[in-house]
Amino acid sequence: MTRAKRRTRAPGQALPQPRARTGAERDSSPTPAERHVERIVLAHGGGGELTNRLVAERIVSRLGRPAGPLTDGVLLRALSATWADAKGNGGAAGRQPLVFTTDSYVVTPIEFPGGDIGRLAVAGTVNDLAAMGARPLAISLGLILEEGLTVDSLDRIVASIAATSEQAGAPVVTGDTKVIERRGDPPGMFINTAGIGVLHPRSQLGLDRVEAGDVILINGGLAEHGLAVLSRRAGIGFETTLRSDVMPLWGMTRRLLECGASVHFMRDATRGGLAGVLADICDATGLSIEIDERRLPVSPAARGAAEMLGLDPLAVANEGKLVCVVAAAGATRALAALRAGPEGTHAAMIGRVHRAAPPLVELVTLGGGRRIVQRPYGEDLPRIC
Amino acid sequence: MTRAKRRTRAPGQALPQPRARTGAERDSSPTPAERHVERIVLAHGGGGELTNRLVAERIVSRLGRPAGPLTDGVLLRALSATWADAKGNGGAAGRQPLVFTTDSYVVTPIEFPGGDIGRLAVAGTVNDLAAMGARPLAISLGLILEEGLTVDSLDRIVASIAATSEQAGAPVVTGDTKVIERRGDPPGMFINTAGIGVLHPRSQLGLDRVEAGDVILINGGLAEHGLAVLSRRAGIGFETTLRSDVMPLWGMTRRLLECGASVHFMRDATRGGLAGVLADICDATGLSIEIDERRLPVSPAARGAAEMLGLDPLAVANEGKLVCVVAAAGATRALAALRAGPEGTHAAMIGRVHRAAPPLVELVTLGGGRRIVQRPYGEDLPRIC
Repeated sequence: MTRAKRRTRAPGQALPQPRARTGAERDSSPTPAERHVERIVLAHGGGGELTNRLVAERIVSRLGRPAGPLTDGVLLRALSATWADAKGNGGAAGRQPLVFTTDSYVVTPIEFPGGDIGRLAVAGTVNDLAAMGARPLAISLGLILEEGLTVDSLDRIVASIAATSEQAGAPVVTGDTKVIERRGDPPGMFINTAGIGVLHPRSQLGLDRVEAGDVILINGGLAEHGLAVLSRRAGIGFETTLRSDVMPLWGMTRRLLECGASVHFMRDATRGGLAGVLADICDATGLSIEIDERRLPVSPAARGAAEMLGLDPLAVANEGKLVCVVAAAGATRALAALRAGPEGTHAAMIGRVHRAAPPLVELVTLGGGRRIVQRPYGEDLPRIC
Repeated sequence: MTRAKRRTRAPGQALPQPRARTGAERDSSPTPAERHVERIVLAHGGGGELTNRLVAERIVSRLGRPAGPLTDGVLLRALSATWADAKGNGGAAGRQPLVFTTDSYVVTPIEFPGGDIGRLAVAGTVNDLAAMGARPLAISLGLILEEGLTVDSLDRIVASIAATSEQAGAPVVTGDTKVIERRGDPPGMFINTAGIGVLHPRSQLGLDRVEAGDVILINGGLAEHGLAVLSRRAGIGFETTLRSDVMPLWGMTRRLLECGASVHFMRDATRGGLAGVLADICDATGLSIEIDERRLPVSPAARGAAEMLGLDPLAVANEGKLVCVVAAAGATRALAALRAGPEGTHAAMIGRVHRAAPPLVELVTLGGGRRIVQRPYGEDLPRIC
């Protein structure tokens, strides 16, 4: 079950106010009488506590899924494909299990510097498979078009889907197109992609494999997707040279899995940013993480834009960044594997896992101080993926 | 590639008027200068000629997919699972290829007599797999919730998804939840489901297998889904005892495949109704079809509602009806297989395939006359699935 993707509000929008409750009620679940008037608010999609509760209590648990940390996809052990790729490489590995994932994309605007909703929909699902250690085999494409969308816009998005699919080696094999009544201005679209991948024979990933002493790597500059989208949002727009980092990452991921390093866990740092992924790791493992601000790749343009908007680059969405947790012994090799292609030119070792209670993510600042990095509540950003 | 699902307008809504063109222009593609102002209209989702052109010319062809009739899903021969079901039945068949399909659901209202968008989303994808001759193995669930939706509504829809998934033997294994800004009243939701199924060992289905002499069967009463949804649409509502027929059909489909009849083709008769499926068969095969009005299962309630609304029950959407084309030799056995369970109590042989030019669907009326049944243009119905 993919973690709920973070959908938040634009700065300046009023926050939805929870109904006042007495102290005794504050932490209890709503009574039936309360519940029928409770409504979904944008923060339910914000990736924070409200999202986690909604997905865990009202969706996942009721669909008969096992409890536990949500991942970007599911391993289907009874289903398989031969690992061999189109060139026949890897055939000796025999049949490998499949991975299945899905994601919907509702970004506004549908085109932004460095990408568009079509590229996002393909790259996002490819990256969810990659983070599970799986090579993409097939993508489904569900288009929901809003009445009034120009055919030219549709053409550009479809061309972008085709190009990204080609780049990622992930063919779109099945699809569906719907049209809904116009409601927004300008009219847009929503896209759902589901993906089937085949598990890399060397992939042995899991939050349960993360250990004290492991090293945290990331493949480049933070926050560029979220800030690039923000720069085009109505009411927020600003001039910047920033471009979204949206990019399919299977090629890089494969290099990493084959470099000889012991890779323990990967996740793409989308909504919630790096901070969200690191908080999830600490929550699930009971271990702590220390990251070093001097080593964090943040471009001057991203730093400037984040400062202007009062945002923390650690909490802003990326769409081409993979957080990798690897055993210390092979970390240098892993870093070289990330850097060996265009997806990882600015890859860096940014921190390490250690044993300390309570489990926390701490940032060692440029000045040598320490601050705790929290999971964003989900109110910092407008919807950006 | 799933055929585009039909999205149309409510009776009384103004039709979008195409720009006037000169006679010479009428059948030509738009020039670049025209195209940039062309916009998506609801009829692009209506399942008619406009939909076919949009999907074929602007989407499928640009994604590098082969031309040809679109089916409800795609067969992935390199991917496989053992056919054996949870009870171990069928293990001797060994590994079988997988089928992959996707569909988005945008019905308004989200709850209607006999069902809701959640049941629709699970049954619809299960039925697309079933029509391809595949047993459902795994479903993905992409929820797009509109701000303002009550938590009680969400709870009911999720419970319905869980119940339908259980009924269909199709577990929801991965998912994603997004929240979008409120735009409609009442606030609703969209759902995408993708499904993976395993091909039944006896499944040998295809439009190329349809032959003159084949018999057409359907598993029960027509038009009940579309009319039940219409009965609750704002501005159209009327009192009726009709309930949607939305129902997962894998169990019935399996009985059919295992009954010994030679099954040549199946498709669920959703938007576009029976008329749309039969027109697709004629278009693809170059054969003609004759159906007998006396044998068409249409309940008195459905007939009355369709008459009141001026709709043809043949063109109204179903969500639990499978059109089956079988060899004449085993047709009686096939009919018995359909009738052997609750999905097919009112199953009937309704017509036959024959060789006649031009390829047409003809209805032999109650009075003994003949009328040509056309693919609905897609303007007859409000959005109903």
